Amino acid sequence: MKVLVINAGSSSLKYQLYNMTDESVLASGRVERIGMDSSIVTHEPTGKPEVRDVSEILDHVTAVKRVIDMLTHDEHGVISSMDEIDAVGHRIVHGGEVFKNSVLVTAEVKNEIKRLFDLAPLHNPAHMMGITAVDNNLPNVPQAVVFDTAFHQTMPASSYLYPIPKVLYRRHKIRRYGFHGTSHAYVSDVAASYLKKPLNELKMVTCHIGNGASVTAILDGKSYDTSMGMTPLEGLMMGTRSGDIDPAIVPFVMGKEELTLSEVNSMLNKHSGMMAISGVSSDMREVIDAMNEGDENAKLAFDMYVYRVRKYIGAYAAAMNGIDTLIFTAGVGENSSVLREAVCKGITFLGIELDDEKNAIRSKEAREISTAASRVKVLVVPTNEELLIARDTFELVQNASK
Amino acid sequence: MKVLVINAGSSSLKYQLYNMTDESVLASGRVERIGMDSSIVTHEPTGKPEVRDVSEILDHVTAVKRVIDMLTHDEHGVISSMDEIDAVGHRIVHGGEVFKNSVLVTAEVKNEIKRLFDLAPLHNPAHMMGITAVDNNLPNVPQAVVFDTAFHQTMPASSYLYPIPKVLYRRHKIRRYGFHGTSHAYVSDVAASYLKKPLNELKMVTCHIGNGASVTAILDGKSYDTSMGMTPLEGLMMGTRSGDIDPAIVPFVMGKEELTLSEVNSMLNKHSGMMAISGVSSDMREVIDAMNEGDENAKLAFDMYVYRVRKYIGAYAAAMNGIDTLIFTAGVGENSSVLREAVCKGITFLGIELDDEKNAIRSKEAREISTAASRVKVLVVPTNEELLIARDTFELVQNASK
Repeated sequence: MKVLVINAGSSSLKYQLYNMTDESVLASGRVERIGMDSSIVTHEPTGKPEVRDVSEILDHVTAVKRVIDMLTHDEHGVISSMDEIDAVGHRIVHGGEVFKNSVLVTAEVKNEIKRLFDLAPLHNPAHMMGITAVDNNLPNVPQAVVFDTAFHQTMPASSYLYPIPKVLYRRHKIRRYGFHGTSHAYVSDVAASYLKKPLNELKMVTCHIGNGASVTAILDGKSYDTSMGMTPLEGLMMGTRSGDIDPAIVPFVMGKEELTLSEVNSMLNKHSGMMAISGVSSDMREVIDAMNEGDENAKLAFDMYVYRVRKYIGAYAAAMNGIDTLIFTAGVGENSSVLREAVCKGITFLGIELDDEKNAIRSKEAREISTAASRVKVLVVPTNEELLIARDTFELVQNASK
Repeated sequence: MKVLVINAGSSSLKYQLYNMTDESVLASGRVERIGMDSSIVTHEPTGKPEVRDVSEILDHVTAVKRVIDMLTHDEHGVISSMDEIDAVGHRIVHGGEVFKNSVLVTAEVKNEIKRLFDLAPLHNPAHMMGITAVDNNLPNVPQAVVFDTAFHQTMPASSYLYPIPKVLYRRHKIRRYGFHGTSHAYVSDVAASYLKKPLNELKMVTCHIGNGASVTAILDGKSYDTSMGMTPLEGLMMGTRSGDIDPAIVPFVMGKEELTLSEVNSMLNKHSGMMAISGVSSDMREVIDAMNEGDENAKLAFDMYVYRVRKYIGAYAAAMNGIDTLIFTAGVGENSSVLREAVCKGITFLGIELDDEKNAIRSKEAREISTAASRVKVLVVPTNEELLIARDTFELVQNASK
């Protein structure tokens, strides 16, 4: 069975085609600048050279058509006809409280995703365009949706409720949802296999640290608490997002600077975080480079960033009354040995002992970077959200056809 | 030397008269409903019966006059004339970045306190009225000011800066200040004496848990981080305050419910916290009573409250790379063995072993409530902010007259 995984944004669409027999990627790529004057398709067929095509792609329906053209192309295609696509899996950011698992797309599922537009106004409408585009291009192919929030639906109320008037939860569903769920789920699963221990015997903290970043406490294999909240703004300091601040700062700044609701949202989501403090970049590599060249603002940004990761690890150890596995994943978590070292060297009291040599190794494989004596096992696990989406889609379609 | 300690609110004024020879309280009391139709003076002279007087007190000048009348009264007075008052010490909530210690009041100090009105619009103007009232009634008596924020001025930038545009710090001084500093300083000092260890060898977490609540990480006797922020809203869930929430909730709620800046501030400060979740009370005793009678909302509020205290203790242990002393103080912290037990039983992994019998003892003395084997010493230390204000005032006046 071949599964096409789609991650549709408002002006972009990423894709991977999986052969589920061996979970190999047949091709991957992206369409950028959808709806703008010169859209770009970048297609990477496995084992063949990358193809880049610039043309006018006005909507997601056309974008999906172009993707199918690429996949079935005589020269740089990887399948002979679109009939070989057995299922499509979509990444959906917000599943609210309705979706606790991945599901096959039905009319009712589409309506539910639309009802959630309010909670994810930037993401869910774009995802719907992706689903509609597949409906148009591949009308008979089953589709599944995999939610960033679903894994965190196991959190207890004491983790997911905010101490604010309850009417806000009843009326607007304001609560902690958490994001990056597919990633936290995937890496915790891989780590348990790596350690040859059942998930339900582990107290894990998973650090998904990319441009967006979140930490999750995983108890008995289930999300117990996570740092992102109602939106992906809460929690860690990120590339351009503030993460946790005194909530009173929001009305204070709005009053002083006469900002609108959308301006203050934009300030906290796009002009804060590492970018604001370093003045250099939102990219961890560039911040570390500047720090190594003696830039004091870059050093401060790095210190603040690391400090906030450490505090979350400590908080979640306290949440679970212990920690035995610490996992780093995503762009920065997988690649920055400097960040991992700074985080781990500050929390040795938890029983964390980093192996500097192992930490320095770069690899695409899951690996342990703590010493043999370390009470807490520290792992780097490359995340693979697309593979998890493909697997969930495959499984749902298999079960439906039984 | 006799020192009068004053804590002036917008419509109230609390006072204590100390004899600094033995640090005994000669009298204490409060004036309530200043500026309203029937103001109430409650005067408690040590060793004599309490006196209660209802009259019209239109401003703070008259309130201080009434306090002096009470203190020098033939029958329920404790000094023969107001000349016996050698100094006055004021509690000031916000000292900004200017005041890193207590200081004697000068014209310049008054101007600085006025410049800070913006950061503490509810508190600092009331404190200024207290200072002016003493100027009027006791023109020749030296006054000192003791700030709730001063103890936290030792925090490193990585603790006190928020990851938001730096212009907000430069222009409006938006940063973490922290509060309850006098209390955190006092109890950490008492705890070190109790443990017979120098402060600079201890890694302490102090939990000031009253109707307002904050946690402080104290490293080498200095505040290293604290849960309250630019305002006393951030941090723990409190009686009626939310504490930490996703900052994106603020604009979201403002938009959905069409709230003004002051309405959303009021919602988060006065209608959130334990009150909002329990639906019962903002008072921990009443919430625990309701919980014991089977009220599920009260149970949830208690669980959330405890959970958030635990997470801060874990976070601050991570901040200092360890913890050896945990201190509970203030109304709830000193009196609720149920709360202390719930907090400590959830974080035994830190090396905390509570002695249930010791925890059950009620006392006005500093005491240890952990077992002899407990790696982390857990103490209950009754706070005494007024005494610290009196001490600071006494010392400043002594040094000035040298």
